[in-house]
Amino acid sequence: MKNIRRIAVAVLLVALLSPAVFAATLDPMPSWNDTAPKKAIVEFVARVTTTGSADFVPPGERIAVFDNDGTLWAEQPMYTQLAFIIDRVKELAPQHPEWQEQEPFAAVLRGDLASALAGGEHALLELSMATHAGTTTEEFAQIVEAWLATAKHPTTGRSYTGMVYQPMLELLDYLHASGFKNYITSGGGIEFMRPWTEEIYGIPPEQVIGSSIRTEFEMRDGRPVLVRLPELSFNDDKEGKPVAINLHIGRRPIAAFGNSDGDLQMLQWTAAGEGPRFCLYVHHTDPEREWAYDRESHIGRLDKGLDEANARGWTVVDMKADWNEVFPSEGVR
Amino acid sequence: MKNIRRIAVAVLLVALLSPAVFAATLDPMPSWNDTAPKKAIVEFVARVTTTGSADFVPPGERIAVFDNDGTLWAEQPMYTQLAFIIDRVKELAPQHPEWQEQEPFAAVLRGDLASALAGGEHALLELSMATHAGTTTEEFAQIVEAWLATAKHPTTGRSYTGMVYQPMLELLDYLHASGFKNYITSGGGIEFMRPWTEEIYGIPPEQVIGSSIRTEFEMRDGRPVLVRLPELSFNDDKEGKPVAINLHIGRRPIAAFGNSDGDLQMLQWTAAGEGPRFCLYVHHTDPEREWAYDRESHIGRLDKGLDEANARGWTVVDMKADWNEVFPSEGVR
Repeated sequence: MKNIRRIAVAVLLVALLSPAVFAATLDPMPSWNDTAPKKAIVEFVARVTTTGSADFVPPGERIAVFDNDGTLWAEQPMYTQLAFIIDRVKELAPQHPEWQEQEPFAAVLRGDLASALAGGEHALLELSMATHAGTTTEEFAQIVEAWLATAKHPTTGRSYTGMVYQPMLELLDYLHASGFKNYITSGGGIEFMRPWTEEIYGIPPEQVIGSSIRTEFEMRDGRPVLVRLPELSFNDDKEGKPVAINLHIGRRPIAAFGNSDGDLQMLQWTAAGEGPRFCLYVHHTDPEREWAYDRESHIGRLDKGLDEANARGWTVVDMKADWNEVFPSEGVR
Repeated sequence: MKNIRRIAVAVLLVALLSPAVFAATLDPMPSWNDTAPKKAIVEFVARVTTTGSADFVPPGERIAVFDNDGTLWAEQPMYTQLAFIIDRVKELAPQHPEWQEQEPFAAVLRGDLASALAGGEHALLELSMATHAGTTTEEFAQIVEAWLATAKHPTTGRSYTGMVYQPMLELLDYLHASGFKNYITSGGGIEFMRPWTEEIYGIPPEQVIGSSIRTEFEMRDGRPVLVRLPELSFNDDKEGKPVAINLHIGRRPIAAFGNSDGDLQMLQWTAAGEGPRFCLYVHHTDPEREWAYDRESHIGRLDKGLDEANARGWTVVDMKADWNEVFPSEGVR
């Protein structure tokens, strides 16, 4: 009899301890200092998840969008995908003897990245297509996975997936536990992210939006494949982000997180909806634990965005002051 | 004491009665006769949802894709979206006096649809762009909603959303309750479907994939909008369907449902994955309750698809024999 009563109490406890109750009793974001940004996040989540509140948002409409480079993981000294491109040019070089003489490939093979990128967007596009196309979608996913398994960040020696921000991992988990659906909306390649975002961020492939190249359906030996063509299909940056959000999600997010001017239109689009909205910029202010850059940076420039954040009262994370940890202890995920 | 024990038993019962247990004890699809297709569906769902089974598929990977026209709702005597186009040409005509003389608009306004469509794909594209572009995304959603609220099907007098198939509604619910994520993958317009698919099918906007026109981010009086441009962006038909599935979902479905040759590549792509797969064609064989058409039809032609279904042993629904109800009683949803 006592056992039955104990089981009953245990079952009732489990039934009562909903994520909302947990969130209220445990600190869901221990890597955030108790400064303004954390308070703003927790207050916003409470507003939209409290049943009966005027600002209550049904779970299906709790859409949050996150930029990736510089918002969820580091983007210095170069975008991770550029490091992938460089390594892949070297790997493919034996099959392309002409690259020894042909720019921008020759410069990459000489280790002279500055010269390789001196050709601007055109050079970058050429390098991207040569290293991202020509395989099936399945082959490309394996190539990305194999590269991530061994590649190391040039200054920290960590794996690239170890260069994600611990406070943002906690934020993703906290929002997910609060009934939010988290999406990535990155200027990076959609197929470059999908192989690992579920394991690292808890974000499944269908919630990853990014830039893409054209793919084509083809029958090979009676088996259908999707072949990646050397042609840009969509550039998911700046004005492209709201367009892609509308195409992939079909509803306006209620929360948006970015770190650069490339995210500004996404934040504007989010902020312009009716009802409660939350917009946040991560400001890179920590040269010791990470990097410090904003208005003058070539990578992740935050200039107009910072002005607009200040003018509109959006939340700005001062990385140095607001985060007590930046990167996770190795091996956490 | 007795009360506590009763509560304990009740709580335990609720905890035990998982959807899988419900599915085994209640008939989840009463509008389906107990013929081969229903048995094949139930058997497949049991295979992929039974923990410990060799064919078990984790919930996140239980992706099902559905064509819309002719698979989830009727497509005769013309695609619903074409009826919308005709009504919209008439509605916009006062703002376009030139249409009185200009084909294909003049023919539509004379009520001569055959002549209007004699111009083939070019004429249809022209009509589509004139009636689907020029508004913001939000305005267009309202236009679709307002039209659906009053438009009636020409032969049944029902609302168009009353022309959905009751057996397919039950199938969607059954799969959803079994941990599947249902997607629409339609040749129809993505923004033409999203305003109503959640209410009618239980499928939220982010799980709707379709053809699209280009949209552009624009600031109007300081407020961001997405403007619909008269330019086809993506044609989600035939080879386009696997491409769109890959772009939007990023994983291969384990189940696919269609009714025409336009769905063949989607079914091939689904079938080609490893592990258990389920492909089904709805065959329109019921001239009394619905329509009968296949190899010779201009709308929803099912020719190559029928051959491949027979050759590969895919499930083919004989609408007349396998469904005891076709359309829902009015007002069910």
